Amino acid sequence: ENTPGQQDAFTSRLLFLAEADKLKSVFRASRLLDDSRFENSAEHSWHIMLYAWVLSEHGVHPVDTDRVLRMLLLHDLVEIDAGDNPIHGNVDHAAQDALEQAAAERLFGLLPPEQGVSLRSLWQEFEAAETPEAIFGKAVDRVQTPIANLENGGGSWISYRVSLPQLEARVGRPVRRGAPDLWTWLQPQLLDCFTRLGLPV
Amino acid sequence: ENTPGQQDAFTSRLLFLAEADKLKSVFRASRLLDDSRFENSAEHSWHIMLYAWVLSEHGVHPVDTDRVLRMLLLHDLVEIDAGDNPIHGNVDHAAQDALEQAAAERLFGLLPPEQGVSLRSLWQEFEAAETPEAIFGKAVDRVQTPIANLENGGGSWISYRVSLPQLEARVGRPVRRGAPDLWTWLQPQLLDCFTRLGLPV
Ligand SMILES: [Ca+2]
Repeated sequence: ENTPGQQDAFTSRLLFLAEADKLKSVFRASRLLDDSRFENSAEHSWHIMLYAWVLSEHGVHPVDTDRVLRMLLLHDLVEIDAGDNPIHGNVDHAAQDALEQAAAERLFGLLPPEQGVSLRSLWQEFEAAETPEAIFGKAVDRVQTPIANLENGGGSWISYRVSLPQLEARVGRPVRRGAPDLWTWLQPQLLDCFTRLGLPV
Repeated sequence: ENTPGQQDAFTSRLLFLAEADKLKSVFRASRLLDDSRFENSAEHSWHIMLYAWVLSEHGVHPVDTDRVLRMLLLHDLVEIDAGDNPIHGNVDHAAQDALEQAAAERLFGLLPPEQGVSLRSLWQEFEAAETPEAIFGKAVDRVQTPIANLENGGGSWISYRVSLPQLEARVGRPVRRGAPDLWTWLQPQLLDCFTRLGLPV
C-alpha cells in the first residue's frame, strides 16, 4: 500500500511527465542530418546532452558535467507553452521572456513544491548564462545547428539567408564564451560553406 | 589554433554525434500521448531521463541519479544499428544481443578510445541490470509505456493483444525490482484499464 503522501506525489509527478510529452511536438527551424524532417525540441534536448558529455573537456572552464546535463534536459520545457524561438528569426525578446516565465511557473508548478522550485531554479540558472555550467550548456545548445548545417549543406542558413557575420554574432559569441576551441575548429569550415553557398561572408 | 590532437578529437567526437542523430529515426511500438504518431528512441530517451530525475526518490535502493541519467542517455544508441526490440514482440534474444554488441562496438568505437571505452562500459552496466543505478534505470525505461498506454486508452496493449499477467511478467517484474511503490500505485489503474478494454486479466 502507498501512503496518501506518496499517492499525491505520484499524481503530480506523473501529471508533469505527461505534460512534458508535448515537447515532442514542438518543432524547430533545424532539420535532421538526413534532411528527412524538422527536428523537435525533445530529441534536440537528448542530442545536445550527448554533445555536452562527449565535448565536456573542451569547455573553457572546468564544469560539473552532470549539472550541465540536467540543465539541458530541462532547458526547452518552457517551449511547450512559449514555442521555439528560432535564433535567426525576429522576436520580441521581452514578450518571449514573459511567455517563458509564465510557462515555467505553470509547468514546474505541477510538481510537488520543493521539487518544482529546485527544477525551476536550475532552468533559471541556465537562462541567466552566468555560471560555468550554464555558459558551457548554452555553447553546446548553440553549436548543434551550425554543425548540422555544415553536414546537410546549409539548412536554416539558406532559408533565413544568414550572413557569416550574423552567425558570428548570434552563434559564435555564445559558443566562444563556453567552448572557444570548438568554434576555432569550426571557423574555416563555416567560411568555406558560406562561400560555396553564396551567402554573405 | 587547435593542436593536431584536439583536431583529431573533434573529428571523431563529431562523427559519433552525427551518427547519434540517426536515433531520431528509430521508431518504437509506442505512440505519443496525443496519439499523433509513433515515438522515436531519441525523444523517448529524453523523456525517461526526466522520469528518472523526477521519480528518483521512489527507487528501492538509494541511487546516484546522475549515473542513472547518463545510462539512460546512452541506453538506446545501439538501436541505430540493431533496431528497436518491442517488449511484446517475439525476438530471438541471442541474435538481438549479438546485434547490439556489434552496434556498441561500432558506435562507441567512433570516439577517442578512452572515452569510447568509458561510455561503452556504462551502457554494458545498464544492460547487465545488476547495479542499483541500472536496476532503477531499467524500471523507469519499462514504466513509461504502461503510463502512456493508461493515458491514451491502451495503445500497444491493444495492437499486441497483451494480457495483464503478460504485462506483470514482462513489465511489472523489472519495474517492481527498481521502483516497487510505483508499480503498486499503477496496479489498480492497470486492472481497471485491461478490464475496460476486454483484455485478459
Ligand atoms: Ca554527480
